[in-house]
Amino acid sequence: MTIQEYIKVNAELVENELRNALPAGWDVPGPLRDSMQYSLMAGGKRLRPILVLAAAEALGGKKEAAMPVACAIEMIHTYSLIHDDLPAMDNDDYRRGKPTNHKVFGEAMAILAGDALLTHAFYAIVQSSRRFGVPAERALAIVEELSAYAGARGMVGGQAADMLGEQGLTKLEELEYIHTHKTSDLIVFSLRSGGWIAGGNEAQLKALETFGQGIGLAFQIQDDILDLTGDETKLGKPLRSDEKQQKVTYPYFIGLEASRAKVEELTNGAKAAIAGSGFPNAERLIQLADFLMKRDH
Amino acid sequence: MTIQEYIKVNAELVENELRNALPAGWDVPGPLRDSMQYSLMAGGKRLRPILVLAAAEALGGKKEAAMPVACAIEMIHTYSLIHDDLPAMDNDDYRRGKPTNHKVFGEAMAILAGDALLTHAFYAIVQSSRRFGVPAERALAIVEELSAYAGARGMVGGQAADMLGEQGLTKLEELEYIHTHKTSDLIVFSLRSGGWIAGGNEAQLKALETFGQGIGLAFQIQDDILDLTGDETKLGKPLRSDEKQQKVTYPYFIGLEASRAKVEELTNGAKAAIAGSGFPNAERLIQLADFLMKRDH
Repeated sequence: MTIQEYIKVNAELVENELRNALPAGWDVPGPLRDSMQYSLMAGGKRLRPILVLAAAEALGGKKEAAMPVACAIEMIHTYSLIHDDLPAMDNDDYRRGKPTNHKVFGEAMAILAGDALLTHAFYAIVQSSRRFGVPAERALAIVEELSAYAGARGMVGGQAADMLGEQGLTKLEELEYIHTHKTSDLIVFSLRSGGWIAGGNEAQLKALETFGQGIGLAFQIQDDILDLTGDETKLGKPLRSDEKQQKVTYPYFIGLEASRAKVEELTNGAKAAIAGSGFPNAERLIQLADFLMKRDH
Repeated sequence: MTIQEYIKVNAELVENELRNALPAGWDVPGPLRDSMQYSLMAGGKRLRPILVLAAAEALGGKKEAAMPVACAIEMIHTYSLIHDDLPAMDNDDYRRGKPTNHKVFGEAMAILAGDALLTHAFYAIVQSSRRFGVPAERALAIVEELSAYAGARGMVGGQAADMLGEQGLTKLEELEYIHTHKTSDLIVFSLRSGGWIAGGNEAQLKALETFGQGIGLAFQIQDDILDLTGDETKLGKPLRSDEKQQKVTYPYFIGLEASRAKVEELTNGAKAAIAGSGFPNAERLIQLADFLMKRDH
């Protein structure tokens, strides 16, 4: 299977699970359920859940046991997109060519759908740990890490810095804070949680973390590059949207060529962290790092 | 100690803990931290954390071990108030006489502060379980219950139904759905989590749940009654705000006298559930139920 096929197959597995993420028997107000489901099923790369699965596989773990955590992370990612798109935040009307959640369901329901998805992610983790016999101590560590990486010090902190930065970033370090927390943190957690599920030891989890930091920052710089040089049709959005939103980017600080070199350097560093750790089955992670570096959307 | 003194003393203990809820060493963007802290420390009855402590004590458990979960629940309650007050929701400029979060920090930061508090609550639970040697299996059950009671089937579902109901409720059952989920669910969880921490068995947790359902619905009906008949100075808000916001209430459906009788009936039922369960130390819970029934703000 090529890495493209691997991504496609796993993304479909994830989508099948996400379709039933909210049990049909639950007494949830219809529009809230629809709003949650709308954004969960609105497409996307499913990169984070695929990283969870690949990390578990890299350590010889079972994909089935990692799937519920993979879905939980996609719920967190989805909630963050719903809230980021709100008028008070980035004020986006479209995402991946579809109207954003609040354009369809209204702002109140969009805020609540985000809140509910965030909350539900923790439920999904506990449920799955029971179903697959993950030891309670390990499941608790996953809950702890998720709340750290997704919270004030992590993803939410990154988004807050991004909002505050609209008044003008002046240093590359400020942009790196945003990129690291807004994007990398959840990618790092995806890899670590896959490692946890597969019973990885401290050194293996640390290698997955280093890998995640590398591809996470590379991913975001690549986003900045594509916003300048990409193909609008493939990206599904107009070029130079960062500029229009007065968002400074990596190329703004160090130029396009140096940014490209940085993506390659980060990717190579990430691959080296994994390759040197004696994982039984790291091939897909390595391929994913290369795939992300070369992506055009 | 009178129940008034008991409430005052415990509310102060809770506030002391909440003041340090976000460790000073954490690298969190300043305005995000300030926004979280502002609403956490904006006063309020601290009813839910006090119920956690009282439930743990009722079973002979230690207050110290229950305190972090008590604070976690206050974080959840606080996040829900921040989001409920947003322009897209209830659009409130003041809460307890102070400007609401978004009036001080802007909408974007208010949304993010709510997200971060919700996320941080789960972190606090895991941390505390470690600190006080709560078995991992039990801590995981608390995480599971919190995500259920606070999520789409619980508190968020209640708030969604409340938003949707602004287009006109026609049945008492619809209002009971809102009251139960928007208000009771977190009160029920407060009691159950106190019971969990103290090592309560199934029957004891069930008794705490029944107690919580009774006082939770009574609390909300009492709110509806006070909005019609209370003292504006004590309430800290103008009377008849439900009417002005076109919110239907319990008295709207069954009248004022029947609503008062319902509060008493629910409170008595709650007390009976506890009294009949042989708790070693249920006195404070019984007193709290009476206190809430007779409150004037």
